[in-house]
Amino acid sequence: MVKSPEVEHPKKATGWAARDTSGLLSPFNFSRRATGEKDVTFKVLYCGICHSDLHMAKNDWGMSTYPLVPGHEIVGVVTEVGSEVQRFKVGDKVGVGCMVGACHSCNNCANDLENYCPKMILTYGAKYYDGTTTYGGYSDIMVADEHFVVRIPENLPLDAGAPLLCAGITVYSPLKFYGLDKPGMQVGVVGLGGLGHVAVKFAKAMGVKVTVISTSPNKKKEALEHLGADSFLVSKDQDQIQAAQGTLDGIIDTVSAVHPILPLIGLLKSHGKLVMVGAPEKPLELPVFPLLMGRKIVGGSCIGGMKETQEMVDFAAKHNITADIEVIPIDYVNTAMERLAKADVRYRFVIDVGNSLKSSS
Amino acid sequence: MVKSPEVEHPKKATGWAARDTSGLLSPFNFSRRATGEKDVTFKVLYCGICHSDLHMAKNDWGMSTYPLVPGHEIVGVVTEVGSEVQRFKVGDKVGVGCMVGACHSCNNCANDLENYCPKMILTYGAKYYDGTTTYGGYSDIMVADEHFVVRIPENLPLDAGAPLLCAGITVYSPLKFYGLDKPGMQVGVVGLGGLGHVAVKFAKAMGVKVTVISTSPNKKKEALEHLGADSFLVSKDQDQIQAAQGTLDGIIDTVSAVHPILPLIGLLKSHGKLVMVGAPEKPLELPVFPLLMGRKIVGGSCIGGMKETQEMVDFAAKHNITADIEVIPIDYVNTAMERLAKADVRYRFVIDVGNSLKSSS
Repeated sequence: MVKSPEVEHPKKATGWAARDTSGLLSPFNFSRRATGEKDVTFKVLYCGICHSDLHMAKNDWGMSTYPLVPGHEIVGVVTEVGSEVQRFKVGDKVGVGCMVGACHSCNNCANDLENYCPKMILTYGAKYYDGTTTYGGYSDIMVADEHFVVRIPENLPLDAGAPLLCAGITVYSPLKFYGLDKPGMQVGVVGLGGLGHVAVKFAKAMGVKVTVISTSPNKKKEALEHLGADSFLVSKDQDQIQAAQGTLDGIIDTVSAVHPILPLIGLLKSHGKLVMVGAPEKPLELPVFPLLMGRKIVGGSCIGGMKETQEMVDFAAKHNITADIEVIPIDYVNTAMERLAKADVRYRFVIDVGNSLKSSS
Repeated sequence: MVKSPEVEHPKKATGWAARDTSGLLSPFNFSRRATGEKDVTFKVLYCGICHSDLHMAKNDWGMSTYPLVPGHEIVGVVTEVGSEVQRFKVGDKVGVGCMVGACHSCNNCANDLENYCPKMILTYGAKYYDGTTTYGGYSDIMVADEHFVVRIPENLPLDAGAPLLCAGITVYSPLKFYGLDKPGMQVGVVGLGGLGHVAVKFAKAMGVKVTVISTSPNKKKEALEHLGADSFLVSKDQDQIQAAQGTLDGIIDTVSAVHPILPLIGLLKSHGKLVMVGAPEKPLELPVFPLLMGRKIVGGSCIGGMKETQEMVDFAAKHNITADIEVIPIDYVNTAMERLAKADVRYRFVIDVGNSLKSSS
């Protein structure tokens, strides 16, 4: 017999869940497992709203199950640790990102790339090892295997640091993996949203020269003056794009809408790399000739492994990198989702879970 | 005043040229420059027919000028060298591939990647440094700067070795650059034509396990028994493709027709590489999600630099790698082009220039 979410585990929990493809969220009582030997339990203080939360709440990708508690940019303070937990103690500031499980035996896991493990378990909307559904950070408490828990350095603000756990690692990992982190390199960032604005900050901290590429000319001032980008291109301005042909070593493309990549490939130097971190629902048009002529590549990247996620958070703390956020109470979440769908946020909503969600325990 | 091709240079030359977009070739008298200080002049003995010769003869890419003498898989014997030529002497066996000039001062040139130099000069149908048109190897003699001349090792047959100068380097270079040359790796080769059959041979010589992927089930025996591939997949057989998901470290895709790449991306392991060396005229459909999920890349590659071309020819000689060819006389060239358009050749036509083209000198 399948137990109801409220009683399947011993720990009472409460959160906000989507109930159907309307994506509308409402209060939801459920439960979390008891703290296992290797588990860390923590009180959730803040949770970022990722664009994928919106897609998942509405089942845009056809993989959602309801009730669905979103949230994978989760930070809080440890309240309990299992007997075998080694890296954390009660009172520590911690975070959980997009995943809470993996096989720990495949090649990817052996190389600290749990994010590419075929059995990777997502933080919400997935089946955990025990067959129960995983619930995300729009909730009062979180229980996670310590392997998937990140230490938040003392000087990193919890609210503005939360989005690093998805947005941050999503752009940090490809900058490193594709070798776009060398001082003096020229790197483009396409799209100045939740991912893009953090990409600019990381790339700048790595010593890279950053060109922001956006459809909106009115983001120029923001990109240059506030985020510290070195230059700005309006993607639909053919003269600007033409003048910048062959100038970039790489591009981090954060756009998840269908968009032309031919102009982006043209911006690359020979052997340049266009790295996609947004996932348009339909295929893009790939012109092959320009790839051949410059031995260019189009690659993908998806979050990062746990070791690299800790490295990223430590790097962010060292360089004072946080997301630009708008902190909201939990009962504003549906309005926030509407605004997010219109890109009306600068640049990330973060839910003040600790102060606005009445705890169940 | 522009001089006619026949008198613009001092050396008489003869060859076969396309005159218009019909692509039909006919005898053509022209001239070659006098042997310059750094030039090597050689009697052409064999010239391979590359698929691009067909496209160029018909101006399929919109960049052809007429008369056009195709041919960039050219081998022969040196008849004269300039005073500053250091690596060659009269009687040496030599070859010229796809290019005869470059700027020698850009980053790519400095890294032995003349093939990606923006000022690279193609062997035929291009403007040489002096403003005159370059003519290819469907001709009796060739004059080229020694930098763009390759030494053909003694044991490499000139006829079956000729196609290495384009087909060979086109597949050898990406195997090396994309790191698909490690013994025990699993590499796919898509398309079993002029490029593909040589790719199988090079990959096998590198110790790689090769899977041939083809639309034609009837190429299986040939691929496995004659070329020594380890396995064979029919690209339209969904069961076969499904069963082989996630098994390949990389794929060399030689197909120049528009074709689906989603199944190919699916065949790759995480972090796998799909390398395009054929150039479909229209964009392909690029599904982004699968790239992200496995941190896979789609890359391009275009021939190779001169240093690597020499390395490739030496490697081929050491491992007895040649193309499978059908040797034809020059007056069969139009028929050969027709058959090539129907992929009716196993696997490369090579023109016996030395024995079938009446020399002008």
